[in-house]
Amino acid sequence: MTKVFTLSIDMLGSETKVNDVLKGINQSLLRNINYKFQLYGPANLIKKKMEKYKRLIQVSEIIDCESFVSMDDKPSDIIRSKENTSMYRAIKSVKDNHSNAILSFGNTGALMSLSTLQIKTLENIRRPAIASIWPNMKGESVVLDLGANTKLDSRYLIDNSILGASLASILFKINCPSIGLLNVGVEDNKGREEIKLASDKLKEFSRNIDINYQGYVEGNDISGGKTNVVVTDGFTGNISLKTAEGTAKLFQNHLNDAFRSSILSKIGYFFASLAMKSVRDRLDPRVHNCGILMGLNSLVVKCHGHSEYRGVSYAADIIYSLLENNVNNRIQHYVHEMQSKLKKGF
Amino acid sequence: MTKVFTLSIDMLGSETKVNDVLKGINQSLLRNINYKFQLYGPANLIKKKMEKYKRLIQVSEIIDCESFVSMDDKPSDIIRSKENTSMYRAIKSVKDNHSNAILSFGNTGALMSLSTLQIKTLENIRRPAIASIWPNMKGESVVLDLGANTKLDSRYLIDNSILGASLASILFKINCPSIGLLNVGVEDNKGREEIKLASDKLKEFSRNIDINYQGYVEGNDISGGKTNVVVTDGFTGNISLKTAEGTAKLFQNHLNDAFRSSILSKIGYFFASLAMKSVRDRLDPRVHNCGILMGLNSLVVKCHGHSEYRGVSYAADIIYSLLENNVNNRIQHYVHEMQSKLKKGF
Repeated sequence: MTKVFTLSIDMLGSETKVNDVLKGINQSLLRNINYKFQLYGPANLIKKKMEKYKRLIQVSEIIDCESFVSMDDKPSDIIRSKENTSMYRAIKSVKDNHSNAILSFGNTGALMSLSTLQIKTLENIRRPAIASIWPNMKGESVVLDLGANTKLDSRYLIDNSILGASLASILFKINCPSIGLLNVGVEDNKGREEIKLASDKLKEFSRNIDINYQGYVEGNDISGGKTNVVVTDGFTGNISLKTAEGTAKLFQNHLNDAFRSSILSKIGYFFASLAMKSVRDRLDPRVHNCGILMGLNSLVVKCHGHSEYRGVSYAADIIYSLLENNVNNRIQHYVHEMQSKLKKGF
Repeated sequence: MTKVFTLSIDMLGSETKVNDVLKGINQSLLRNINYKFQLYGPANLIKKKMEKYKRLIQVSEIIDCESFVSMDDKPSDIIRSKENTSMYRAIKSVKDNHSNAILSFGNTGALMSLSTLQIKTLENIRRPAIASIWPNMKGESVVLDLGANTKLDSRYLIDNSILGASLASILFKINCPSIGLLNVGVEDNKGREEIKLASDKLKEFSRNIDINYQGYVEGNDISGGKTNVVVTDGFTGNISLKTAEGTAKLFQNHLNDAFRSSILSKIGYFFASLAMKSVRDRLDPRVHNCGILMGLNSLVVKCHGHSEYRGVSYAADIIYSLLENNVNNRIQHYVHEMQSKLKKGF
C-alpha cells in the first residue's frame, strides 16, 4: 500500500502566485496519487482558483491566513511576533504531526529559524543545511550548504556530507553516492584548516563505514558532475550558487541579444527555438532552484520566491519522494552507523 | 612621446603554443607600437615560428630556456631549485629593471611565490591579489582576489579594494569606480565578522577620501554588473570564478547538444552561427581569463594554461594599458591618500 503524505504549503509572503502553486501541486498529485495538502493562505482566493482542479479539492484543506512573514522581516523579529503568519502555522502543523512536510516560497532566514526552533534538528545533527539539486554535465548533483550556516566548521562539513549523501542516495537511487569537499584545489595541502580537518576525518570514515568520500573538488567540478554530492559551508555555497545563477542569466541574455542581432540570426532562432527551450528548461533556476532544509525532524523545503508551476510541481515531487523513502530515518541510520563503528564521535 | 615598455614572457610550462603567443603579441604590437618583448623559451623553435612576423622580430629578444616550472611543482620546491627556469628568469629580468612586466601561462602558485619573493609587494600592501576582468550585463568588472590568499582577513579585503579600484579606474577609464564586498546578503548583519569589519572601515574611508564603496554585493551581482569592482578573499573568489566557468561550459555544452538534436535545430544553427560565435567570444574564458597579480612592485600577469592567440593579445593589451597608466603609482597614491587623511592606519 502506498503511503499517504500531507504537505503544508505556506502560500503567502512571496511573488509566487496562487495559480502557480495550485497548478504545480495538481500536476504532482497526478504522479503521487496519495498526496494530501494543507494550504495556508487567503481562503477565498484559493477556493476560487482551485475550482477547476476537482481531485485537488478533495485532498486539500484550506487554512485561511492573512498575516505573513515578509521578505524584509529579520529572523529575530519573526520569532517574537509572527505566530499568526501562514509560515508559522504551516510549520506548527508539521510539529503537531498534522502534516509531514512544509513547502514555502518566502523568507529563507525566517523559515530556517522558525523551523529549527519548532521542529528541532535530528539527533546528533547540530545545524540544518540547505541543499539544492544542481544540473551538471552528467545529470544532477546535490550541493550543500547553500546558506543555512555561514560559519566554516569541520563538524558542520562532516554533518553536511552525511545529509547530502542521504539525499543523493534517495534522489538518484544509488547506494553510496560519491562526496566531494569544495576547495580551491584538489591537492591535500590546499585550502583552509577546517576543510583539511574535515577531509582527514571523512577519509577515516570512508575506510570504516559505507561512505564514498572522493576528496576535494573545485568550483568547476560542480557543473562538471565530478561527484554526486558537493559539500561546503553556507557562505561559500551561497555565493557559489548565486554566481552560477548570475552566469546562466548573463549567458541567456547574451544569447537573446545575439538572436535578435540580425535577420539571419532571427531565422536561426525560428528553427532552433524548440532546442533553445529545452536548454532553458534544463537549466532554468525557476525550475531547479528549490532549497531543501535538511537535518530537521521534518522535511522543510524552500522554493524560489518567483516560482512558477513547473518549479512547484518539481519541488512537490521531490518532497514526496523523500518522504516515501524516509529520508530522516536514513540520515539517522548514517549517523548511528558512524558512531557505533568509530570510537571517536564527530 | 609614447613610452616604450618591455614585456618578459615565460613561454614554457603550459599547454599554450609558441605559435599562439607570437600571433597574440604580434596583434597587440600593431596596437601598441612601442612594445618590446623578451621571450624566455626554446630559441630555435621561437625563431622559426617568428619568421613571418617581421616587425615582431625587430622588437623581440629571445632568451633560450629549456628548464621550466611544471604545473605539478609545489611553490616550496620551486623556490629552492628552479633558478634556471623560464619563469624565474623572466621574473628576474623585471626585478633587474631589464623589463617592465611579466606574462606567464604556467603554474599560478609558483608564479606568485617567485614574484613575491623577488619583486616584493608595494609599500603598505601586505599581500598580492589575483584580479580578473569579468564580463557582466553592463560591460566588465574587476573581481579580486581569485586565489592568491585564501585567508579571510579584513585588512586584505581593504587592500584588495584599493588594488581593484586602481585597476578598474585605469581599465574602464572612470575616476572613482564603485566597489562592492562579496557577501551572502546585502543587509548589514549578513556574513562573517571579518567582512563586517572591512565593510565598516571602507564606509569610514569613503566618507573621508576618494573611494566609492557601495556596500555588500551577492554572487549574482558579479555577472549583473552592480559595481565596477567586486572584492572578496582568495578562497571565495577562486570558487566563485571556477563555478562561473563551469556554469558557462555547462550552458555551452547543452546548447551544442540542443543544436545537434534535430534537423530543424541544425538549420537554426546554420543561420545563427555568427550570432552564436559572438556570444562565445564575449564569454570565452580562453579570452577573458587572465589573472593580474596586483600589489607587487612590477606587474605580473598569468594567462590561462591553454591560451590561444586572442587571449594572449587581450592580456598583452591590458598589460600595456596598465603600464602606460602607471598602475603601481596610482595604487601607492591611493594608499598614501588614505594614510594621510585618516588618523588610524589600516
